[in-house]
Amino acid sequence: MSRQGKGDKTECNWSSVLNQLLRAGQGETVLNLLPSAIHELNNALNTILGFADLLQSEPNIPKALKEDLKAIERAGLKARELMMTLRFLASGVTSQVQVAPVDLREICHQVVTVMAASFRRNYVRLLTEYSDKTPIIFSDPSRIRFILLALLQNASDAIGSLGEGGQLFLKTEKDDLGCAVLVIEDEGQGLPKEVRSKLFEPFVTTKTEGKGAGLGLFLVRQFVSELQGKVEICDTEKGTRVVVTLPSLQIQT
Amino acid sequence: MSRQGKGDKTECNWSSVLNQLLRAGQGETVLNLLPSAIHELNNALNTILGFADLLQSEPNIPKALKEDLKAIERAGLKARELMMTLRFLASGVTSQVQVAPVDLREICHQVVTVMAASFRRNYVRLLTEYSDKTPIIFSDPSRIRFILLALLQNASDAIGSLGEGGQLFLKTEKDDLGCAVLVIEDEGQGLPKEVRSKLFEPFVTTKTEGKGAGLGLFLVRQFVSELQGKVEICDTEKGTRVVVTLPSLQIQT
Repeated sequence: MSRQGKGDKTECNWSSVLNQLLRAGQGETVLNLLPSAIHELNNALNTILGFADLLQSEPNIPKALKEDLKAIERAGLKARELMMTLRFLASGVTSQVQVAPVDLREICHQVVTVMAASFRRNYVRLLTEYSDKTPIIFSDPSRIRFILLALLQNASDAIGSLGEGGQLFLKTEKDDLGCAVLVIEDEGQGLPKEVRSKLFEPFVTTKTEGKGAGLGLFLVRQFVSELQGKVEICDTEKGTRVVVTLPSLQIQT
Repeated sequence: MSRQGKGDKTECNWSSVLNQLLRAGQGETVLNLLPSAIHELNNALNTILGFADLLQSEPNIPKALKEDLKAIERAGLKARELMMTLRFLASGVTSQVQVAPVDLREICHQVVTVMAASFRRNYVRLLTEYSDKTPIIFSDPSRIRFILLALLQNASDAIGSLGEGGQLFLKTEKDDLGCAVLVIEDEGQGLPKEVRSKLFEPFVTTKTEGKGAGLGLFLVRQFVSELQGKVEICDTEKGTRVVVTLPSLQIQT
């Protein structure tokens, strides 16, 4: 806290840290609220799905109307799926790594579904390629969900900041050692030189003020290391590529 | 960051700060995701409400079935109301205070609705008393929503940590100077001595690890001061009382 001088812009800038802490505080507050909000929303959804089901089984309803009820049911089920991913994320990670079988493709599908509106807003054209060889690994699904979400948010924002859209490639595959590999490649703004050496430090961000607290990659590195994996970030001709390699962990007995 | 020594527990403890930063990082990540997730959920809800409306206007549907459709519609509208509050919160606050007419009672109603499941989980018995004299003030509704939410979360957790439930009083009133006053009084665990002098500092928390980053009151004090109000926290016989006083602000023209 000793560096509050105005001339010291490259180092700790108190007013910017204050804003980032406030942003993080808002995040925390909303995060704490989410389980309750999701529970209430789920109650409402259960009512909707229950009655939609009941009505469909009524013999007196014309067939055309049953189609409409089916549409209600489909929308309700989609909302429930979205909410399930949100609930996973809102419950955060446990302090100890919790090992379970993980299919990266499934987590990719969940996270991408819930991010659809963000991709549309940033004119992101998403291309996915989930290799059939992607191994099921033993790892911590809740940490992987956050790793993927944070990286996709960065990629989406990097494309959005250009204002003209771009492609985002999301791939899962298997490496020579049998590890699961996640590749996220964006045609975004790339990495500014001044942040390249300290990408994984907390409170480092290239986003405009109020857009991010700069904790995303800090969290990614921490979680990847807890999962005994590695993460590499590099420039490409058109943007940035991130490769996360995740081994299968031993199950603690 | 120079205080990493093990013997220095009352001061900055790096492993605990690390956990709090990671918690804040998760909060940030989920916060960034929320607008997109809410948008997708809203699309699903619009479909549900649209078809429920359409079906109700069908002449061939028996009256009893219309009642079921009404139930679907009511649940959909409740979900939409919850989502609106979530969306307000997810969009965070603007960097500058944005002044608008604020009815504290309305904000209390919104926030309490979305927290209902959290109150139930902590066996909180909520008692509200919104005085008719509560003035409509010019202030920043988004900041007030966060102030209220953070304070109610603390109160709910303080009651929950006792494991046997307790009362939470939420009151709005008017003081002698015409300010709007918010009173939150809980029968919770009270304030431990060791945090009393630094309640408003960032990363100070009495919650168990992983439960909070300790940014709630830090945010409350900052926002209250930006709204030119004041916040007082004191012990009561049975727990803690927080009083927030908010003046009407000038509208910038």
